[in-house]
Amino acid sequence: MTPISMHAASAPAFAKMLGNMLNWLEAAKAHAEAKKFSTDVYLTLRLAPDMLPLPKQIQIASDAAKGCMARLAGQSVPSYEDNEATLDELAERIRKTRDFVLSVPAEALVGSEGREITIPRRSGDPLKFDGADYLRHFALPNFYFHATTTYALLRHAGVPLGKLDYLGG
Amino acid sequence: MTPISMHAASAPAFAKMLGNMLNWLEAAKAHAEAKKFSTDVYLTLRLAPDMLPLPKQIQIASDAAKGCMARLAGQSVPSYEDNEATLDELAERIRKTRDFVLSVPAEALVGSEGREITIPRRSGDPLKFDGADYLRHFALPNFYFHATTTYALLRHAGVPLGKLDYLGG
Repeated sequence: MTPISMHAASAPAFAKMLGNMLNWLEAAKAHAEAKKFSTDVYLTLRLAPDMLPLPKQIQIASDAAKGCMARLAGQSVPSYEDNEATLDELAERIRKTRDFVLSVPAEALVGSEGREITIPRRSGDPLKFDGADYLRHFALPNFYFHATTTYALLRHAGVPLGKLDYLGG
Repeated sequence: MTPISMHAASAPAFAKMLGNMLNWLEAAKAHAEAKKFSTDVYLTLRLAPDMLPLPKQIQIASDAAKGCMARLAGQSVPSYEDNEATLDELAERIRKTRDFVLSVPAEALVGSEGREITIPRRSGDPLKFDGADYLRHFALPNFYFHATTTYALLRHAGVPLGKLDYLGG
């Protein structure tokens, strides 16, 4: 089997996409300015009435990234207040998340593919995974779900973005 | 560094999410039956006028998965006709893709983290990656983009799905 490290399969992916998300928010600001509407309009966008609005999508993407890095490293997950009320504050949340992701030393993830990971749930038993399953079946798909939904909400609002903005240059 | 194999970081992730997608299409069929509309209605859904409709989202998710496995294994990418015209045919496309993903032997991916991967583009120079960057910065995020967009289109159409259907049980 060819080895890549658990760190190489996680941190660079989160960090790059979080950087892409910052670029989408810049494009959203420029679009609002050009069309003369307040960036606050973005904050209530939802894809369906029973899906979460834009700020929650960004907060959960952040939670997925910081939760994954902390849990794989056996650290406690940094707690953020989820009180971002503007597009600029959401960008700051993304930056803070990226800084945390990049702060976790690669060495801290040694052995993490076999580490037991427990995710509490609002109802029902907690989810349990080994580190490899947690990364490939929970943390990464969940992170990309909320990143993609953020992108979709901005596209829906007319922000001129394309697939290469999603993937990053 | 803790090693996980390139195969362990790719094939199980694609195979599981493709299986989840089959469950979403089953739920979409049941929803159409309950509400007495044709499943063909789903085939023209788009999140924005200049985003691709549901069949294309599924076809590109399929392309991302089969392309990744084939390229990392140094095989030619299986070519599918992109002629699916019903929800059942799209489900068959997903099954065929999953079968292919699971058919690539893990041993074929040994060394693939350093393999040079070239992705032709409709315009401009081809994209070039080593295998590790291709997997974490292109193939997986692109696959999850189209899986999530498929999910979002079905949610938009009222199909009763939740995050656990996205992630799979």
